[in-house]
Amino acid sequence: MSKKLTKRSEDYSKWYNELVVKADLAENSAVRGCMVIKPYGYAIWENMKAELDKMFKETGHQNAYFPLLVPKSLFEAEEKNAEGFAKECAVVTHYRLQNDPEKEGKLRVDPKAKLEEELVIRPTSEAIIWNTFKGWVQSHRDLPLLINQWANVFRWEMRTRLFLRTAEFLWQEGHTAHTTKEEAISESKQMQEVYATFAENFMAMPVVKGAKTESERFAGADETYTIEALMQDGKALQAGTSHFLGQNFAKAFDVKYTSKEGKQEYVWATSWGVSTRLIGGLIMTHSDDLGLVLPPKLAPIQVAIVPIYKGEEQLAAISEKVNVFVKELKAKGISVKFDDRDTYRPGAKFAEYELKGVPVRIAIGNRDLENNTVEVARRDTLEKQTISQDEVVDFVAVLLEEIQENLFNKALSYREQHTTEVTTFDEFKEVIETKGGFVSAHWDGSEETEDKIKELTKATIRCIPNDAKEESGSCIYSGKPSSKRVLFAKAY
Amino acid sequence: MSKKLTKRSEDYSKWYNELVVKADLAENSAVRGCMVIKPYGYAIWENMKAELDKMFKETGHQNAYFPLLVPKSLFEAEEKNAEGFAKECAVVTHYRLQNDPEKEGKLRVDPKAKLEEELVIRPTSEAIIWNTFKGWVQSHRDLPLLINQWANVFRWEMRTRLFLRTAEFLWQEGHTAHTTKEEAISESKQMQEVYATFAENFMAMPVVKGAKTESERFAGADETYTIEALMQDGKALQAGTSHFLGQNFAKAFDVKYTSKEGKQEYVWATSWGVSTRLIGGLIMTHSDDLGLVLPPKLAPIQVAIVPIYKGEEQLAAISEKVNVFVKELKAKGISVKFDDRDTYRPGAKFAEYELKGVPVRIAIGNRDLENNTVEVARRDTLEKQTISQDEVVDFVAVLLEEIQENLFNKALSYREQHTTEVTTFDEFKEVIETKGGFVSAHWDGSEETEDKIKELTKATIRCIPNDAKEESGSCIYSGKPSSKRVLFAKAY
Repeated sequence: MSKKLTKRSEDYSKWYNELVVKADLAENSAVRGCMVIKPYGYAIWENMKAELDKMFKETGHQNAYFPLLVPKSLFEAEEKNAEGFAKECAVVTHYRLQNDPEKEGKLRVDPKAKLEEELVIRPTSEAIIWNTFKGWVQSHRDLPLLINQWANVFRWEMRTRLFLRTAEFLWQEGHTAHTTKEEAISESKQMQEVYATFAENFMAMPVVKGAKTESERFAGADETYTIEALMQDGKALQAGTSHFLGQNFAKAFDVKYTSKEGKQEYVWATSWGVSTRLIGGLIMTHSDDLGLVLPPKLAPIQVAIVPIYKGEEQLAAISEKVNVFVKELKAKGISVKFDDRDTYRPGAKFAEYELKGVPVRIAIGNRDLENNTVEVARRDTLEKQTISQDEVVDFVAVLLEEIQENLFNKALSYREQHTTEVTTFDEFKEVIETKGGFVSAHWDGSEETEDKIKELTKATIRCIPNDAKEESGSCIYSGKPSSKRVLFAKAY
Repeated sequence: MSKKLTKRSEDYSKWYNELVVKADLAENSAVRGCMVIKPYGYAIWENMKAELDKMFKETGHQNAYFPLLVPKSLFEAEEKNAEGFAKECAVVTHYRLQNDPEKEGKLRVDPKAKLEEELVIRPTSEAIIWNTFKGWVQSHRDLPLLINQWANVFRWEMRTRLFLRTAEFLWQEGHTAHTTKEEAISESKQMQEVYATFAENFMAMPVVKGAKTESERFAGADETYTIEALMQDGKALQAGTSHFLGQNFAKAFDVKYTSKEGKQEYVWATSWGVSTRLIGGLIMTHSDDLGLVLPPKLAPIQVAIVPIYKGEEQLAAISEKVNVFVKELKAKGISVKFDDRDTYRPGAKFAEYELKGVPVRIAIGNRDLENNTVEVARRDTLEKQTISQDEVVDFVAVLLEEIQENLFNKALSYREQHTTEVTTFDEFKEVIETKGGFVSAHWDGSEETEDKIKELTKATIRCIPNDAKEESGSCIYSGKPSSKRVLFAKAY
């Protein structure tokens, strides 16, 4: 397979698909719509998980684990939620295979092993979790209940793309229960904030925080808060959502508590999640025609060191030097790989680390030994610099921070350049079709208009930004009065 | 619910079931045979995972993730493996639910959404992984391939018990491919060693390392290495297994590599796994009639501090003192909980930490403030000691190590006392029926004898210990010659 990627300007979608596979992040599997996450891709997910998990625990949440399968009767209990997911769920109907009497060596479903009640593979876990919460909540002393689950979920998606939309994906789902509406809303906003902080500080991916319109809400939610990022092709990506669920699930599953005053009350709920989709967002925020570009804070390998040598003697001399600063870099918590494989040439190694987005590459050859230097190359700007070996540790530590910051600033500046305010529908259509990006426009608040604009332009309302100013205007489509701009875009 | 546990001597099985629920580790769910792992139980699993994951990475393995569902045609490819798991697998046959036309508000399987090929929820992942490995292995440069997966798996077990045997469970499964038979065998033995080290050093659970007999091997393996632990009721627990798979999966999935000599060769394989079952083993190795006893290295809370006070002023004075050494304990990496809840009395807190097996409990009251002391109680021996506040940090650090060691020694001494060598079948039956434990006996090596002994006594051959000495003897059942003793026991 050629390592050369399609250019983004030629075919962005093809570039993405090729990159995911060539950089060893993931691949399609034998199961329709399900991916295999390869070790390099999984290592990014592990880094994401570790940071998110820390943030969840710091905000008082505990992890737990609930069953993969949901009995149909529980699945259908919260009507809107059931309606939203019924169309795309995998259903277990039998619990045994047997030898196929008609085909030697083949198996078939054992017709005698049919389940009395079908089981659905969780597309999301509200149903099974709220059925459990019923037993966990009696008194106000049991609240708030702040639970998170790391798990796989399954949705029978028709059109799938690695990381961005897959039938099975990995995610975390927070599920919380509270005594008051205000506390639940504040929890869901807090988790939106946690997601935004993670996206910006770790993924170096700027996001707009906002609320979804009614038609874009999670099935079963009273309010959905979202973080929306802008990809390099001008399309938006919903990167994480946090839902205020009102008392919908509490009522569907009869979860009540005894208040301090001795009254029986329904609890208030939230749920919130981010998934392996974030890896898709990470790729489409920073990477270029040469391959991945990873922010240092999430890169599985932050520094790759490539020796350039002839013969074992030179390699030994280089290794001796390198081992000294590898140790020092590791002591600083920097993830380093000294690539002394003799089965690949330096050029092949350079290409590999470029493709895999390793933030910093250090090359060291015979002349460097004589001069006490190394060559340091950064992946984001492709700049190279010759540095004294004595300074390399401190230099790299600072450089990694600089790269992290640079990636964020670059992405932010792209987003700023691709966020356009418009006042007429003609302007709107032109921007959506040519420049792309976020389009900030007045909307009359009706689902009818929202649907019509979507039908005509494929653009959807990504969110009503949290920081939208009061501003009187008129809807770009209907001309009706509007008091706030909302953010439109074509989206993944 | 009463917090009082059934005594182990009355009904060990009942004691276990009660303890798992009362100590907030897990509970049964609405799905047959599937458990909910509660936050406290899940925190133990997280600690186990963290240590195991570190050990896997230190031995060169990388994590990846493969699909949950296995197409039937892949599932049946390796015949023995398929035969071993077909009888107990959950089968997905449909991908959509629809409104039930006959029952308002109910859903039913959409008959039009029947899958062409059924999908099996992975009971283990050899099939889907080896189908993927086919694409990953071309040259000897791609080997060894050292992969691990943390995942949920599903086996339709008929009789389930929390942690010990559940339909869905969490586990890790290592899957590796090698150029030579010797390297694969050495990998599977290495992982047996890793499991034994983890069991003994972290779980404080002594294990016997050995090989399974042919009839007890993993379906599809040429050799199964196991670690076997002895529970307090004299029954054995298979705690982890590591399989040498020969070329069975390589041949079933056509996984070949080009050797240095340019020849096409099948690879050699291993797989190895431990699961949430370990938590069951942990419980039944150390706990007592008062509740859980957790080894410090895996305890979610290592030290619980309970203030004994009247009024807010006393609590403030105590908190001021406590905060000083909480900070110091945390700086030493010790997990501490200062329980200043005013909704529970000290007695209730003491009982809770006893039930939950927190290794060290510190109480501090008004008199302690005057005397500059605290009361330190250890969970394993229930001993209490009064210690100066100035010494408490160092004292606790040493005490935690002492508890860890004491638990291991106690369990080891129990096992030694419950390992009996016998020479006749009468002796064998008597020991198995009265004293229980491991019984070391000669066996003629035939499956027939093994089955007969199992039928008559319910005891199975747990393993042929790695360190079994050459010793000529005669089979306890058939009288035929034998050169080694094997280890029998009744088992979970």
